[in-house]
Parts: sequence; structure tokens; C-alpha cells
Amino acid sequence: MRYAVLGTGIVGQTIAAKLTSLGHEAVIGTRRPEATLARTEPDFLGNPSFATWHADHPVVALQTFAEAAAFGETIINTTAGAAALDALTSAGSANLAGKIVIDIANPLDFSAGMPPTLNPVSTDSLGEQIQRTFPETKVVKTLNTMPCRIMVEPGRVAGAHDVFVSGEDTTAKKQVTELLLSFGWPEDAILDLGGIDTARGTEMLFALGWSLMGALGHGDFNYRVQGAR
Amino acid sequence: MRYAVLGTGIVGQTIAAKLTSLGHEAVIGTRRPEATLARTEPDFLGNPSFATWHADHPVVALQTFAEAAAFGETIINTTAGAAALDALTSAGSANLAGKIVIDIANPLDFSAGMPPTLNPVSTDSLGEQIQRTFPETKVVKTLNTMPCRIMVEPGRVAGAHDVFVSGEDTTAKKQVTELLLSFGWPEDAILDLGGIDTARGTEMLFALGWSLMGALGHGDFNYRVQGAR
Repeated sequence: MRYAVLGTGIVGQTIAAKLTSLGHEAVIGTRRPEATLARTEPDFLGNPSFATWHADHPVVALQTFAEAAAFGETIINTTAGAAALDALTSAGSANLAGKIVIDIANPLDFSAGMPPTLNPVSTDSLGEQIQRTFPETKVVKTLNTMPCRIMVEPGRVAGAHDVFVSGEDTTAKKQVTELLLSFGWPEDAILDLGGIDTARGTEMLFALGWSLMGALGHGDFNYRVQGAR
Repeated sequence: MRYAVLGTGIVGQTIAAKLTSLGHEAVIGTRRPEATLARTEPDFLGNPSFATWHADHPVVALQTFAEAAAFGETIINTTAGAAALDALTSAGSANLAGKIVIDIANPLDFSAGMPPTLNPVSTDSLGEQIQRTFPETKVVKTLNTMPCRIMVEPGRVAGAHDVFVSGEDTTAKKQVTELLLSFGWPEDAILDLGGIDTARGTEMLFALGWSLMGALGHGDFNYRVQGAR
């Protein structure tokens, strides 16, 4: 399968590397590839620059959003949530039409400082916004409830823990479920919540995760829903 | 200990019954006790009326908010979230001052129909609103992430699962932790998230819970945070 990963942060890097390790073709899309590659300083969290990562992963081409989306049979949104609709608009409706858009982003708003808040929240979600704005795509929200290192290596958290899936299209959710299985997620850990409006709940889980990261002193945790399923 | 439980719904009933079964004194506060006792129809969810419950639990007196708050050494808010500040105002600042207010309510907004949304959300929480409005109380948010039958009987969900605690006052959180232990919560299942602002995350968990109730077809579930603690 050919994947277009939109976004050059550590989530995009981690997902693209995992996809290529599984034998898929993956490209990463960004607004201006040359500008992205010209930046060599670590980001504000201390993560190495994209250029540093790219030097170790030359098999993953860096392209414009539109070039990447045209290449990908499936699109994966890992952009900063507030930039997601702009990025997808740059990618171009025609390049997205008919495709699955796996949305991993949370709509974090840093405008009032830390911690980030969610915008939209409660009455809407980024997943729904993307589905409404690009009605010819099949949006599946998933993996947005955990750090990216756990997304692609669920075994690093001891004990059973879950990943949620939201979306309107059953076939698209089935394909995304297959991808999650290939990432190492056990079948009974993949919980289909229902339609894309259920993305509200998984996006809103960000706030609890932020508090837990402070309370536990680390981010290597995830959630298990206990009860009959 | 003398407890004032504010709110006559099934959460208040369940908590009051549990408290008396543990040997505490508990009264329930409501706006107009006679009007509450005069209603004999089931509520919109089919739960029996308060009068029906009260006939089986005559040891729990029904009083006005102010009478109940004056009686209680500790206050437990189980009112509908949108009515909580009004109920506490009716209870009276003087009757609340210096006391622990255990806030179990979520700020659900039914004004746009089902499912309810949260108001406030993301940039504020009901827990914080109560603490700000009644600065002489010690607000502890807890138990608001699960159905009331699990609050007082954690063993009904198989496997380890957690309850969160948020609040500014360490001594108050310690006392609430003792209460949770007496309800049957294992010590390592009680997660102190930090200050009252962390109530945002636990209140926002409502949305995921709503979706899971639909996906699983029942409400007998709760969450376990998996990872080192």
C-alpha cells in the first residue's frame, strides 16, 4: 500500500518509519519541503529536526502536501490539529477524493499558553470537521489517545490496553483495523466506537492524558476499558 | 462522620445509602423537600421516584440544601452539573465554609438534546467553578468518571480499574481517599491527578464514556491506566 503521511513532526516520522518497516511505501507531505529540510535545530520539545530524522530514513520522500496526497492510496493526518484543515486543503480535494483519511491529530490550541486546550471541543471534533470539509473522503479517527511510540509498539506498555476507532465507513474502518493489527495491536484491543462524532470523546481524552503525564511523571501509559465487551 | 448529599437523583441515593451502610450519618439536600417527596412517577430514565427510594431508606432525612449543608461535616455534590452552583448557593457559603466539598457531578448541557455536551469544558471545569465560587471550601473532584453503582461497588467491574482525585488541599484529598478505600477501592486504584484544574480531564472523559456505552451496549465499565505508577 502507498501511504501519504501529512506532517513532519515525531508522529509523522514514527508512523512513516513503521509503515516502511512493514513493507509499505510512504512519503511525508509538508507545506514547503525545502524550508522543512533547511531547519536543523531541534524543535521546542527537544526533538531532533526533521532533516536529522530524514538523513536516517532517506527511503521516505519529503514532498508537498499535494504531491504526497496524489501519491498516497491512503492519507494519514499527523499535522498539528489547528493546521490540519489547511494542510488537507493544500493537499487538494481531488487528491483526497475516495480515499481513507486516517486522522491521528488532536485539535490542540496553544494560544493561551500551556497546557493546550481543545478547539473544537464537546460540540464538534477535528475528525468531524475533516469529514464535513472533505465529504468524498472516508475519515477514520484512531491512535490519537496515546504517544506515537505506543501507537506503533503497543507492547511497550505492560498489560492489556486499547485503541479506539471512529468513522462512518465500515469498509474503511476494517482496513484501518488491519493496519492496527499489523502495528501489533491485539484484535480485542481495537474498540470501534461508532460514527465519526465519537471522535469527540477520544479527542477530549487528551486533557486527562495531560494530567496523568504530570501525575505519573512519564507518558508511557494507555487506557484499558474494563468490563464485558 | 456526618455527610450532606446534595441532589436527589440516583447518584445521591446510591452514595447516601452507601454512607449509612458504613455507619455514617447522611442527609440528602434538595431545593424543596415537600415537592420532591410529592413526585411519585419514575424519572425520564425510568428510575423510581425519590419518594419510592426514600420509603425504603427512612434513615436518610430529606432536608433543604441549607439544612443539609449545616448538618454535614462534609458535603457531597451529586446535583445535575448545570444546577450545582445554584444548589451550593442555596446551601449557603456559611454552611459550606471550611468544609470539604466532594464534587461528583459533570457539567452536562442537555439544551441541544442528546447526547449532552459539557459546559464548561476544556478551558474550565465545574470543579474549578465550585472552588472559585466558594473559596473557603476544599473541593475534591472524584468518582465522576463512572456510573454510581460502580462508585460504591468497584468489584462489579472485573479486573483492576481506577478512580481519579483532583483538588488543591492535600489533607482533604487524604480524607476523600480514606472514604474511597471504605467504598472498596484498592489503594493503588486511587490516582491523585493534582490540582482542581485536573478536573477538566475527568469531566471531559464523559464524552468517551457516552460513546463506549453505545458501542459496548452497557454501562458496567471503567478505565484502567496501564503503565508504571
